[in-house]
Amino acid sequence: MEETERYDRGWKKLRETNETAARQLLDALGDVAPDLGRYIVEFAYGDVLSRPGLDPGSRELVSIGILAAMGNAASQLETHIHSALNVGCTREEIVETLIQTAVYAGFPAALNGTAIAGRVFLERDGNGTSR
Amino acid sequence: MEETERYDRGWKKLRETNETAARQLLDALGDVAPDLGRYIVEFAYGDVLSRPGLDPGSRELVSIGILAAMGNAASQLETHIHSALNVGCTREEIVETLIQTAVYAGFPAALNGTAIAGRVFLERDGNGTSR
Amino acid sequence: MEETERYDRGWKKLRETNETAARQLLDALGDVAPDLGRYIVEFAYGDVLSRPGLDPGSRELVSIGILAAMGNAASQLETHIHSALNVGCTREEIVETLIQTAVYAGFPAALNGTAIAGRVFLERDGNGTSR
Amino acid sequence: MEETERYDRGWKKLRETNETAARQLLDALGDVAPDLGRYIVEFAYGDVLSRPGLDPGSRELVSIGILAAMGNAASQLETHIHSALNVGCTREEIVETLIQTAVYAGFPAALNGTAIAGRVFLERDGNGTSR
Amino acid sequence: MEETERYDRGWKKLRETNETAARQLLDALGDVAPDLGRYIVEFAYGDVLSRPGLDPGSRELVSIGILAAMGNAASQLETHIHSALNVGCTREEIVETLIQTAVYAGFPAALNGTAIAGRVFLERDGNGTSR
Amino acid sequence: MEETERYDRGWKKLRETNETAARQLLDALGDVAPDLGRYIVEFAYGDVLSRPGLDPGSRELVSIGILAAMGNAASQLETHIHSALNVGCTREEIVETLIQTAVYAGFPAALNGTAIAGRVFLERDGNGTSR
Repeated sequence: MEETERYDRGWKKLRETNETAARQLLDALGDVAPDLGRYIVEFAYGDVLSRPGLDPGSRELVSIGILAAMGNAASQLETHIHSALNVGCTREEIVETLIQTAVYAGFPAALNGTAIAGRVFLERDGNGTSR
Repeated sequence: MEETERYDRGWKKLRETNETAARQLLDALGDVAPDLGRYIVEFAYGDVLSRPGLDPGSRELVSIGILAAMGNAASQLETHIHSALNVGCTREEIVETLIQTAVYAGFPAALNGTAIAGRVFLERDGNGTSR
Repeated sequence: MEETERYDRGWKKLRETNETAARQLLDALGDVAPDLGRYIVEFAYGDVLSRPGLDPGSRELVSIGILAAMGNAASQLETHIHSALNVGCTREEIVETLIQTAVYAGFPAALNGTAIAGRVFLERDGNGTSR
Repeated sequence: MEETERYDRGWKKLRETNETAARQLLDALGDVAPDLGRYIVEFAYGDVLSRPGLDPGSRELVSIGILAAMGNAASQLETHIHSALNVGCTREEIVETLIQTAVYAGFPAALNGTAIAGRVFLERDGNGTSR
Repeated sequence: MEETERYDRGWKKLRETNETAARQLLDALGDVAPDLGRYIVEFAYGDVLSRPGLDPGSRELVSIGILAAMGNAASQLETHIHSALNVGCTREEIVETLIQTAVYAGFPAALNGTAIAGRVFLERDGNGTSR
Repeated sequence: MEETERYDRGWKKLRETNETAARQLLDALGDVAPDLGRYIVEFAYGDVLSRPGLDPGSRELVSIGILAAMGNAASQLETHIHSALNVGCTREEIVETLIQTAVYAGFPAALNGTAIAGRVFLERDGNGTSR
């Protein structure tokens, strides 16, 4: 019962931030590791990312900084750049976050992150997405 | 002349966020690599961290997320937890940022970051620092 | 109710593998980030580490390999070397795992991991722990 | 002479675990860095991976955990997922190992590793490989 | 004025080492994060990489070692292999540097770096570039 | 016989670069993982670091860059700063290498590496070591 509550809260959060990515994720994991998908919904989105105490925009910018700095998660970085825009961050805030990774993680991290942001912005321009 | 402007802007920013750390940093580098200290003032603080487009609190939370996730920068993480509090972030926002690193960088990163935050909070309680 | 079940399952797992570390962890997090401790019990131990499909010894060896390779989690590596011995792994298996990290993550990772293992073995010899 | 013995032992190990990958590796390095290929055969496979003290299946699971956690070795991870299956690990054990990386290295590492495992499983299904 | 001097010095350095990469970089960043491109010219090339005290060839070999070891910067590694050859390093020195990364960062880092070097060498053979 | 040759060549190299560290290393590993010590002598020093094709000073600078950038190998970095000085690198070259890591791996890596260099320089000044 509780379990359902965590899953529902996570799924709601995931849909709010990035519905397309959510469905792709669960489809991709469906045959190989369905429980990993469930943990992402329940734990990552249901437990952590839906906590109060930090506004959704700041959460997404922190995620973008971490993922760009780690440099091994291009597809997750792309997802969270979309999510950041979906919850109301501006393109400028995202670019500032990526530029800042140069200070702590070096220029390659910042450059590769910015290249991904550029592709996301272009895709959204093509789709007529206002942000 | 421009050079002086960048240094001055960086030094002002550094003092606003963490004057003690600033002096310790420059003293420590003084004999070994004074130019590295100058670059931190001019480039990290003067060029990047003083940019508009992202508020100072969000910049510090992004720094905390990155430094905790990378896991090889305990002393810099301590500095930025102080800085975050100095520019007005709440302890709750810092703890939320650290908990969130568990999702992208694993529990050890989050745990080690939280241990550092615990020490900073205790130190500030001892100093009677309101935040 | 389910929540209690996950916590109980995780706590049981954690006690089986390393009761001292478990209490230290929760004490340390108590004031700063109690929910992070709860997530470790519920998610890390209750959801993941207590899954069937991989025997407890193999799980611990995999954890040791990952933590030694990442190189930013000395305290967690120490904990899992204890845990591996507690669930029945031999010292030889642990040393073999650490030597193997040299191949994928380089000699410094293997050396630093081995130094931690040496300290754990010495501590257990001092305590008269059979393994 | 000894040299030949190490090379032979390594080559035998490499062929047992993954003959196709072995040939591709040596071909690829042939013109650029043939000695790197020789070191992989002699040191990685001849010295380390053929050591007794840890069974071949556990060695492969540890390799998979490390490579997925490091996140910068997609091609080597693919190779070792094949190798793990070749030496008798089950698909379930591999998936469990990958899910476990989420705890220590974060969800992106686990997700990207699982995507690679999914492709390997599909390829082997297509080839009629029983495991 | 000073600012112009730093940019000019950096741009000169960048053109000496790798003019094609320089233009691609600035074009790519143009719309998304032009200031990041400016920082790379001013700070990375104008401040750091044009410092005396270490000869240009050693600087490039150090860059190659770092980028191969970090393993999250394939495109920057490719650029610096070209740059190393442009400033007079031999192919042998580059290959030696990459083999050496195996010792500190593991074989996957060395292998992936060598694969990139192989592509650069082939491309330059095709272009009739003497080195 | 060959085996002896590799060990002898590695041991000679290790003694030339850093005899104290060499003995400490083998002593430390003696009880826990003697074979890891043997591999470091035979493979790291006997096979790789004694290769021709890159001069010993450049090899040490590359090692310093990699170890500082990875940020998880403080003790090995200290050893190689000593070794670099022992084989004839200047303090300036070492500091330049460390400053350069800021570009690719961020300022914390450069700062932590420089702190270690400062301690090594001070220790050698105390010992009256000319470099």
